[in-house]
Amino acid sequence: MRAIEESAVNTIRFLAVDAVEKANSGHPGLPMGGAAMAYVLWTRFLRHSPRHPDWPDRDRFILSAGHGSMLLYALLHLFGYPLSLDDLKQFRQWGSLTPGHPEYGHTAGVETTTGPLGQGFANAVGMAIATERLAAEFNRPGFPIVNHYTYVYCGDGCLMEGVTAEAASLAGHLQLGRLICLYDDNNITIDGSTDIAFTEDVGKRFSAYGWQVLSVEDGNNLDSIAGAIEEARQETKKPSLIMVKTLIGFGSPNKQGKAASHGAPLGPEEVKLAKKNLGWPLEPDFYVPEAVRKHFAALAARLEEKKKEWDKMFAEYRRKYPELAAAWDAWHSQEIPRELEKDIELWQIPDKPAATRVSSGDIMQVVARHLPNLVGGSADLNASTKTYLKGYGDFQAGNRKGNNLYFGVREHAMGAVASGISLHGGLRPYASTFLVFFDYMKPPVRLAAMMGLPVIYIFTHDSFSVGEDGPTHQPVEQLANLRSIPNLCVIRPADGRETAAAWLAALRRKEGPTALILTRQDVPQLSGTSREAEKGAYILDREKGPKPDVILIASGSEVWLALQAKELLKEKGVDARVISMPSHELFQSQSPAYREEVLPAAIKKRVVIEAGHSMGWEPYAGSEGAVISFDSFGASAPGEVLRQKFGFTAENIAARALKLLES
Amino acid sequence: MRAIEESAVNTIRFLAVDAVEKANSGHPGLPMGGAAMAYVLWTRFLRHSPRHPDWPDRDRFILSAGHGSMLLYALLHLFGYPLSLDDLKQFRQWGSLTPGHPEYGHTAGVETTTGPLGQGFANAVGMAIATERLAAEFNRPGFPIVNHYTYVYCGDGCLMEGVTAEAASLAGHLQLGRLICLYDDNNITIDGSTDIAFTEDVGKRFSAYGWQVLSVEDGNNLDSIAGAIEEARQETKKPSLIMVKTLIGFGSPNKQGKAASHGAPLGPEEVKLAKKNLGWPLEPDFYVPEAVRKHFAALAARLEEKKKEWDKMFAEYRRKYPELAAAWDAWHSQEIPRELEKDIELWQIPDKPAATRVSSGDIMQVVARHLPNLVGGSADLNASTKTYLKGYGDFQAGNRKGNNLYFGVREHAMGAVASGISLHGGLRPYASTFLVFFDYMKPPVRLAAMMGLPVIYIFTHDSFSVGEDGPTHQPVEQLANLRSIPNLCVIRPADGRETAAAWLAALRRKEGPTALILTRQDVPQLSGTSREAEKGAYILDREKGPKPDVILIASGSEVWLALQAKELLKEKGVDARVISMPSHELFQSQSPAYREEVLPAAIKKRVVIEAGHSMGWEPYAGSEGAVISFDSFGASAPGEVLRQKFGFTAENIAARALKLLES
Repeated sequence: MRAIEESAVNTIRFLAVDAVEKANSGHPGLPMGGAAMAYVLWTRFLRHSPRHPDWPDRDRFILSAGHGSMLLYALLHLFGYPLSLDDLKQFRQWGSLTPGHPEYGHTAGVETTTGPLGQGFANAVGMAIATERLAAEFNRPGFPIVNHYTYVYCGDGCLMEGVTAEAASLAGHLQLGRLICLYDDNNITIDGSTDIAFTEDVGKRFSAYGWQVLSVEDGNNLDSIAGAIEEARQETKKPSLIMVKTLIGFGSPNKQGKAASHGAPLGPEEVKLAKKNLGWPLEPDFYVPEAVRKHFAALAARLEEKKKEWDKMFAEYRRKYPELAAAWDAWHSQEIPRELEKDIELWQIPDKPAATRVSSGDIMQVVARHLPNLVGGSADLNASTKTYLKGYGDFQAGNRKGNNLYFGVREHAMGAVASGISLHGGLRPYASTFLVFFDYMKPPVRLAAMMGLPVIYIFTHDSFSVGEDGPTHQPVEQLANLRSIPNLCVIRPADGRETAAAWLAALRRKEGPTALILTRQDVPQLSGTSREAEKGAYILDREKGPKPDVILIASGSEVWLALQAKELLKEKGVDARVISMPSHELFQSQSPAYREEVLPAAIKKRVVIEAGHSMGWEPYAGSEGAVISFDSFGASAPGEVLRQKFGFTAENIAARALKLLES
Repeated sequence: MRAIEESAVNTIRFLAVDAVEKANSGHPGLPMGGAAMAYVLWTRFLRHSPRHPDWPDRDRFILSAGHGSMLLYALLHLFGYPLSLDDLKQFRQWGSLTPGHPEYGHTAGVETTTGPLGQGFANAVGMAIATERLAAEFNRPGFPIVNHYTYVYCGDGCLMEGVTAEAASLAGHLQLGRLICLYDDNNITIDGSTDIAFTEDVGKRFSAYGWQVLSVEDGNNLDSIAGAIEEARQETKKPSLIMVKTLIGFGSPNKQGKAASHGAPLGPEEVKLAKKNLGWPLEPDFYVPEAVRKHFAALAARLEEKKKEWDKMFAEYRRKYPELAAAWDAWHSQEIPRELEKDIELWQIPDKPAATRVSSGDIMQVVARHLPNLVGGSADLNASTKTYLKGYGDFQAGNRKGNNLYFGVREHAMGAVASGISLHGGLRPYASTFLVFFDYMKPPVRLAAMMGLPVIYIFTHDSFSVGEDGPTHQPVEQLANLRSIPNLCVIRPADGRETAAAWLAALRRKEGPTALILTRQDVPQLSGTSREAEKGAYILDREKGPKPDVILIASGSEVWLALQAKELLKEKGVDARVISMPSHELFQSQSPAYREEVLPAAIKKRVVIEAGHSMGWEPYAGSEGAVISFDSFGASAPGEVLRQKFGFTAENIAARALKLLES
């Protein structure tokens, strides 16, 4: 190692060590052990622009082992990203740019929020998919405007998680040659040596997935690491796993190679010993030698040159291919085309009963005509979730221009891959499965909400009306669980028109993900449903008199029941209002005046009907209202039988309303 | 194939086909394609007792591909389990013994509830662990009283799921030689050929996990299948995967080998063609030839002989090893020992601030002394969740007598493995991780609740007070999500004594799982906390006057804040009651009189405080109450800073109470 390189690597190590020490919290082991491999990658290979962190053709670097955040922060700082030494000193403090785990949208240069293990790896697979899809669409001879790699850094923890296994299998199948994973193979996890729980042959496993597997025996040998990365880049048909043997906490005389260096400060004495051991000055803390500053500045300058070359190429591309460049702009915009908003075909729902999943499938075909960058698929349930885009081809190793993704029976990876596609930019991803299997993909949905990614989830088979498949396939608490995720918008439309409105609301939403909740079973097309559904709730059937005796509030397939119940109540002389409420979140975003108009505080007799858990409906029912919900596990029988058995009938709703009025 | 065998296999096939046809719903493809392999296993190897389905030394058979339920039902019927031909005719109907997916506790002979893919496979790993642990404890020379295998039947879908990957890696590591997986390798999933998403080398992958991998080229060749199973049984150091090439929907001329035969009735015409094709009489439906009846009756009789031999051996064992036999009885009982209930050490909590996870760790050591069959561990977080049982050894390939399991960073498999251990019988399992990572293991927790398994989950780091690790590690909605699962009991104790009460409540609960929710940070030992916590809620600090001006309701780490707020209110002349409410579910199970005593309906000024999502608290706060909750994502900073920033202070609670009283 050249002296300057060694000095640079040690700078990274001790910036991390000092930051963890100052915060009295954090993970020094990874940055110490992995500094050399990260340094090689960032200085010899990674194409990025510290001045333009959103350069579309940058290489992506994902720190899947997010607890090693200081490794990333140190690199971002040294390369001149807007992250000062003072920011590093504020590691893990309130309001700082250096939170405990890297947060997307918070710190420039952070490509995704990581920490929950395995998520970053699967995000990276999504990014590599997006790269291939966009390259196929936009590259032209002499104009490789999409020409970047996705590098992911992960540890033993990431590789034990099932989501990584799913994503790796998919990446191998799709032959994502531009995906390169650096595996920090240090044989240590929180509880000690990996011998206690993780003795599989990781290389053989990845080879079985169709990956190229490379090894580096010494994680501090820069040239060996560089050689392996170069070999990985040469392999265009397979993603590559580079297994780099490292020593966690490298340099710490008493803690290196031990779990003790993983997740706690080394302590002042051990920090001193480590600095001495690696020939590093004990003072000052957060030391960056001037030569190292210059070294990174020179590297950064060269990177900006590459960025400028690309800009020049893109300007030429825009001249030569103005239509493609316009499409590029459109694909990279978050706005949806006006033509889509105005397309009347969205609202031309055949006037016959249809499952909202079927209406959704029809609507998606219209949407795709206006949004050619709509890509997605299901976890082996296309036939059931109706999310296949007809005529848009399948994305496969042999066809990079397809928009339909086959995720396989891998819900967890599907969620994280969809996030990765969204994070990459240029594409608008969706992902679908049965509502009950949202449970398998909760972690990436939560992270998408945290990151504010406009991913669209399509969850079908949305209640016990699934029927014969029984309790394992019948969602109960899933709707409430989705609504409990901050910054997720949940919409459960009542019929075809409301489904169109739901799609528009989902597509228009930029600040976070949206979940569409759709029926398996047919529902009638209701009189009066409309685009108003985008407001989250609206009066579907108004009372006759000046104010209603009772308000019936329902969502999805239960709205039809509420309308029928209103008729039964009419026969009893009760004047009911029916509110369709497809979305709590959209309704809460309306003005107080509108909300009061729809749901007047003075009217306290209210019946809420939804074929799911009651949690979350109490505020709408109020203290004098009733909630007709389903709070236990379902059963295997035809859906219509279950609706009777479980009390989801117009008669029962009317009876509950009458009982409320008596009290 | 002998004629009787062929006839028996076809009987299985067409019982399934006819049942799906009659239900007009279900999955004929798997039973048709897999009938032969299941037949061989059940007739030549499986040790079980149709008359005593709970025989402890039976082999376990897990249909992980639960959608093929009719395969299992047909076998159970033919072997003489209490499942009649009429029951088969009621397939997927209300109240029948033959629901769409196999349900544990509902149909005799069903070892676990399956349907959500991969869960059964991971359950099976848990069962195989339990077998080894019990064999090591109880077997003696000449008395192999624990001597059974676990067989799991799975398809492509199961093998794509990450939970299977995690569990398989763990099984290989643990060298579970008595675990044998029959892989119905038919290359078809719902969306078509596995070529579209699943082209990895499955055999090589399992070999990388440390499994023995065997292949059978013809899934209808009984002797080949038998040979492979025999070979699998001979291998004692490795679990075995037998890859059996089958044709989905075998026999159906137009649908075999196609996704069309997977999940829908063949249709009457195709059923006829299939029966003709395999030389099966077209009439009657649900045909069981007399010779086939006799064939299975003879097999069943022989099985009962084996059961009797075991009974005899066990009687002799009881004579020779009365203490071991008594221990065997105790381990297989669901009751907890009286000595445990009475052990005062449980309540000897040092009078100094301590995290409830730490108190829990101390209490577990006491529990283990009384419950030597308590087994479990964490997903690589023993050091943090404090769930290691000191002096009870590690369960590993080289030590089957350990009680501590290292699950690795595999939360999803951990949940399903814990269920498998519980399903097996003889052991009392627990599993722990951070509360936020409950998200990774929701599917098995839901199934455990559905099956009524007394698994104990220990979720620590239970709020934003986790601090510096930031929003990815700070639970928000997880508590509400847990409470929304039917039949799960959630307990969040306030201090050490309440933690002891929580443990007792969890251990005493037989009818379903319990989740203990514990702090990372220290909390003080509160005056007045007691065993009353087992009631779910109790008056911790009573008002001075005849009735309270306001009721403060809190759980866990917020109870201390409520007590402080009461003092502040006192200074303002406000007389508050403080209720500690560690568990909604336990409180709901109390008498209406007790509930009214604790939380009088007439007192409407209430403030609820919990550092989690508000969902689920509205019914306790009531229409005039307030909920101090946390409904957005957290941040990275020291926990104490976050408590101030997020308003979790006694001052804020007092202020909210005063505001309520003004209104």
